[in-house]
Amino acid sequence: MSIKFNIYTAMPRFSKSVSALRSSEIRDLMTLASRPDIISFAGGMPGNDLFPVQAVEELFRELDSKTKQAAFQYAPTPGLPSLLESLEGFLETKGLPVKENRLLITTGSQQALNILGKAFIDRGEAVLVENPCFIGALSAFRSYEAELRGVPVDREGIVIDRLSQEIQRKERAKFLYITPYFHNPAGVLYTTERKEQLIASLQGTNIPLIEDDAYGDLYFFEEDRDRLKPIKAINPDGINVCYTGSFSKILGPGLRLGWMLVPEKIYQKCELIKQSADACSPSFTQVLADAFIRSGQIYSYVASVRHEYKKRASTMVAALREHLPNYVQWNEPRGGFYIWLTLPATADATQIMTLAINGGAVFVAGKTFDPAGQQNNSLRLSYCNNTPEQIVEGIPIVANAIRAICG
Amino acid sequence: MSIKFNIYTAMPRFSKSVSALRSSEIRDLMTLASRPDIISFAGGMPGNDLFPVQAVEELFRELDSKTKQAAFQYAPTPGLPSLLESLEGFLETKGLPVKENRLLITTGSQQALNILGKAFIDRGEAVLVENPCFIGALSAFRSYEAELRGVPVDREGIVIDRLSQEIQRKERAKFLYITPYFHNPAGVLYTTERKEQLIASLQGTNIPLIEDDAYGDLYFFEEDRDRLKPIKAINPDGINVCYTGSFSKILGPGLRLGWMLVPEKIYQKCELIKQSADACSPSFTQVLADAFIRSGQIYSYVASVRHEYKKRASTMVAALREHLPNYVQWNEPRGGFYIWLTLPATADATQIMTLAINGGAVFVAGKTFDPAGQQNNSLRLSYCNNTPEQIVEGIPIVANAIRAICG
Repeated sequence: MSIKFNIYTAMPRFSKSVSALRSSEIRDLMTLASRPDIISFAGGMPGNDLFPVQAVEELFRELDSKTKQAAFQYAPTPGLPSLLESLEGFLETKGLPVKENRLLITTGSQQALNILGKAFIDRGEAVLVENPCFIGALSAFRSYEAELRGVPVDREGIVIDRLSQEIQRKERAKFLYITPYFHNPAGVLYTTERKEQLIASLQGTNIPLIEDDAYGDLYFFEEDRDRLKPIKAINPDGINVCYTGSFSKILGPGLRLGWMLVPEKIYQKCELIKQSADACSPSFTQVLADAFIRSGQIYSYVASVRHEYKKRASTMVAALREHLPNYVQWNEPRGGFYIWLTLPATADATQIMTLAINGGAVFVAGKTFDPAGQQNNSLRLSYCNNTPEQIVEGIPIVANAIRAICG
Repeated sequence: MSIKFNIYTAMPRFSKSVSALRSSEIRDLMTLASRPDIISFAGGMPGNDLFPVQAVEELFRELDSKTKQAAFQYAPTPGLPSLLESLEGFLETKGLPVKENRLLITTGSQQALNILGKAFIDRGEAVLVENPCFIGALSAFRSYEAELRGVPVDREGIVIDRLSQEIQRKERAKFLYITPYFHNPAGVLYTTERKEQLIASLQGTNIPLIEDDAYGDLYFFEEDRDRLKPIKAINPDGINVCYTGSFSKILGPGLRLGWMLVPEKIYQKCELIKQSADACSPSFTQVLADAFIRSGQIYSYVASVRHEYKKRASTMVAALREHLPNYVQWNEPRGGFYIWLTLPATADATQIMTLAINGGAVFVAGKTFDPAGQQNNSLRLSYCNNTPEQIVEGIPIVANAIRAICG
């Protein structure tokens, strides 16, 4: 080994698909969000103070030794059998057709979206997504080099005219991806009418629907429960509905557990993809999630965080009412984590963000959620991970930055 | 919604890449392996009785409440900072160049292989793998539609002549994947000479090396420690070495934690892929693994399982010596989980397996590990998850099945 090789001659030759992944601004935002001197309305994570730490620790302590050992062992690729059973029970309370479909436990619902992306997308094929759209979904579908076609969302859900236009295009989309329940980032809860129109638009098209229900449990108003009925539970004829969900908002994202409930044919493909992706989801946290469901504590816990997020949302709503200029459009949230501000058409949320950071507050600029990465006269505020004091202090900073740029 | 759609007209149109994934026989084997009336030499999982359940439970109990909360929260995509730090310390004890490379925590080392597959492989491109080869790697590389070129392994490691032939082929391979330390399934520990020849073969070719070191800690003989020095630690000029490892054999696979230690340029791509795959590895188990390393218990624990696996291996070696016909070739293991039997050229291990299952024992037939899925005059026996009594009872069943088919 006396010959010296120049390291610059030995550059790895990467696959083409990795170039579709963008070096994300999210990482920089997260760095900002963790600075103690900056009030962060950027992150979509639950409050650390809200996790059921003690309850879960006690549940683990009381498990028998065989179950504790199983927590250290590989689980079957589809999921720990006991969790599959208890989670089916949990999903049945939402009216979901668990017996006529297959349940696959995934390493967070991010993995569910990634697996579905891999199952359906060949390079350059089109998929339909909402605009704005959850960035994790954009990232997953980009990683398989999908052409992302954005369909606008208004206060009632996806805009049906525009959806129909996209559906009628010659090169048919491989699927439609939506987050109808407390949309991330737009905060929207689809109306029942809009869901029915969407179903009618898809029937007969052979375009599968990916229905992401990560936030549905976090409703603030009992009267919304009808609107929260998943399309998967409506079980419309002739549509392959792939329903995804997550323990991230109802237990903790650090467990990395999500799921998909899908028709058998789709399940078969997804299980193989899952096996090659990471063999199985973490048994350790599957054991914990199973105990959390079986103890019934999941129901009381979700009720308590629902109450807490409603309080945080109200505080932010009051602060926005007080401080925002009139020309900013926004919705009062009915659940979930987010408020979406729409600014005048020429506004640049990145400029506003720079000012806000200097003032001591941060959020996510709209273009992050645009499938085309362009439209930037909007921004997302999260209230999930802030104390009322932080909200009261931080919102005027955001409002001032908006005024400074937009007048 | 009065129109009825025929479900058969609404078949989903899958991507081409999923057809590259085989409906694995592994699942059926796992079902057999879990039947209490069958002695399984099939699984590559640690013994359930060996997991450090109590130690880990105590470590968790003693963590401060902030750390416990962090276990429920998202971690940064590259890994929990505290685990990245402690794991670097652990890897430094192996002489690995942690400062000149980047460490990425993955959801098991299966995910590390999958991410590297995605980073390097475009459809139809060639990669070099050992024959036989770890099935998880075959599955990961198949999922990106690689052309798998198998290079034979003998008792000292990969066969250099054959490797050189493959390297010289016009269509250059995107990487070489090897498991030099207690190879799965062949049980081989590469000789130092063979490693040096391999390094020399790769230098100047611009073919990256993926070095999978999932079993290196499980050596039975102190005198082998020099041979266990990773190629990544040798740090040869002009080769991009991607080193992968796992907590599965030194703590528990149910934690789903592995890692890759790779050059900066490769790391950048892999972090983006990881972000779109599952956002981050489980924080909960990262907190546990970190505590396990920092307490120093990882070292004493690994020493104890090393001792236990050596005992199980010795029991199997004695049983094989007593019962196997002379024409079966095999190596006494020096570490790891596996013994690989090579049968006469015309033997069919699947036939032998069927007989053995009827007799009450199961193993994995050789063709499962052949990149081409053909060669079947071999089989893998695992001793990792069996009591001495099971080994003594099960090996004669396997030997009888071999005699019944091969004479």
